[in-house]
Amino acid sequence: MRLDEIGEFGLIARIARAAARLPRSRGVVLGIGDDAAVLRARSGEDLVTTTDALVEDVHFRWRSESPRSVGRRALVANLSDLAAMGARPLGFTLALAAPASLPVRIVDGLVAGLLREALAWGCPLVGGNLSAARETSLTLSVLGAVARGRALTRSGTRPGDRILVTGTLGAAALERARAERRRGRVRRVPEPRLAAGRALARMPGVGGCIDISDGLDADLARLLAGLPLRAELAAERLPLPRGFAAGCAGLGLDPQRLARRGGEDYELLFTLRPGAPSASRLARRLGVRVSEIGRVVRSALRRGASSPGGWRHF
Amino acid sequence: MRLDEIGEFGLIARIARAAARLPRSRGVVLGIGDDAAVLRARSGEDLVTTTDALVEDVHFRWRSESPRSVGRRALVANLSDLAAMGARPLGFTLALAAPASLPVRIVDGLVAGLLREALAWGCPLVGGNLSAARETSLTLSVLGAVARGRALTRSGTRPGDRILVTGTLGAAALERARAERRRGRVRRVPEPRLAAGRALARMPGVGGCIDISDGLDADLARLLAGLPLRAELAAERLPLPRGFAAGCAGLGLDPQRLARRGGEDYELLFTLRPGAPSASRLARRLGVRVSEIGRVVRSALRRGASSPGGWRHF
Repeated sequence: MRLDEIGEFGLIARIARAAARLPRSRGVVLGIGDDAAVLRARSGEDLVTTTDALVEDVHFRWRSESPRSVGRRALVANLSDLAAMGARPLGFTLALAAPASLPVRIVDGLVAGLLREALAWGCPLVGGNLSAARETSLTLSVLGAVARGRALTRSGTRPGDRILVTGTLGAAALERARAERRRGRVRRVPEPRLAAGRALARMPGVGGCIDISDGLDADLARLLAGLPLRAELAAERLPLPRGFAAGCAGLGLDPQRLARRGGEDYELLFTLRPGAPSASRLARRLGVRVSEIGRVVRSALRRGASSPGGWRHF
Repeated sequence: MRLDEIGEFGLIARIARAAARLPRSRGVVLGIGDDAAVLRARSGEDLVTTTDALVEDVHFRWRSESPRSVGRRALVANLSDLAAMGARPLGFTLALAAPASLPVRIVDGLVAGLLREALAWGCPLVGGNLSAARETSLTLSVLGAVARGRALTRSGTRPGDRILVTGTLGAAALERARAERRRGRVRRVPEPRLAAGRALARMPGVGGCIDISDGLDADLARLLAGLPLRAELAAERLPLPRGFAAGCAGLGLDPQRLARRGGEDYELLFTLRPGAPSASRLARRLGVRVSEIGRVVRSALRRGASSPGGWRHF
């Protein structure tokens, strides 16, 4: 069955039914079906909002990824931005654009993937928009909340700060490279570091924070953009996944390069004042592996900082 | 100059500079440039969020509308949804997808149109996303706030309620028809009824409320969907724009049909308890023309209510 057989309103009803099977969230006053959704934060919270799109043949290809995985990645990418701000999720909207000829089962897969992550991270689907288009795309907007004035930001790094990262780097890039080589499918979906981000937002001594969506080098450049600072990284301290070097060798890839430039790790990259807790203490507090990979030193301010090695769209 | 000559980061900087020329809004804690934006509502407010997309060759054509007008319409369509909930705007995000070959001046025009409405209605651009795509599309998400528990909704209409509408119906449809006939450009951009919506949210006696985006017939059907009710409309009371009948006659169009099915009027359609104020009193309170066009009566509940005559995407 194609989208133009079920129709716009049939599809909305289908998505709403799937979303309604999830447990009701306390923060949702009014969900799918009205002109807008109504959400409720706690008193004394700021609102955090971000938007991100996955476009067919730009961010995903049907032949190399299942609809379910695309849906999962779409929500995770947005939740990772909330994590980088130290926020908790309140809900998200989905703007879906697709050709009228798209099979309904593909949309079912996308929605199933979205709702799986929605359930896992407590971020209900509260509304959206459907449109015809030449290619399929999912544009999500996620709304979150953080204690007033406590949002983590990219700015705030100072000379002498230590540079830390959660988890490991490069697994997503290695899997993409593997899938391309074998014409197989990408299956691994990273986790948004929501709990770690919230713990960081409660801590004193955090400088700046960003999530690694475009690769360590690119996102580190963004973290220091506009500041008279540069990073000194200890290459041997980069946290690589188990078996990563061997996996890279099998494909003739440079592990360091892949770990630094691969992208879509969705780990948190942040800076800490020198006196703040050690990486091992932080790991316990954040509930995730934490590695100290370098430090920040003074530098001449370069105007128009670029983002070397990351994804570029144009 | 094309988008791929200025580059993704060049384009982000260009949009951020344009947005920064607007006066700072009190509700924006952190705007463009971080992983997410941080907004602040007043204590005791609920959050209202909605998303809407305009897609090239589906919702607009470059040959029949200026980029500036497309940008203006994109934000107005979203603000109209906030109006229908009785909310005030806090800010919006823009997910822009476009071919790499698109001239930068077209994006400049889109952004100028968005920012013109942003300034007019106090709804700053706080973040967004850029992506390559085969066709140009703008997906906006707007965030607003309304006094806790006071959001207007589509549900809540009862038998005996009066049916009212702000402004006039059909002007947008007539202009589109005119532009098509003459191969001219659409210039008129409707106003979102934000002040009227906020006034309605403060009033007792309001049943349901919806904005007319797809035409009176379609949106009235939505307002009554799922309820054992039907509408009795007084055709002679439909508020038509000045010179509308003559304009329709010149194009061989039926004025009643165009007013009821045209769409994109962005007026508020709402129901009121019998004892609530008269249309003329309401007009003074809402600061806009208000017409009583019919009433709601009991009916057998039809399952799967359709939306006759409105826009359908698939």
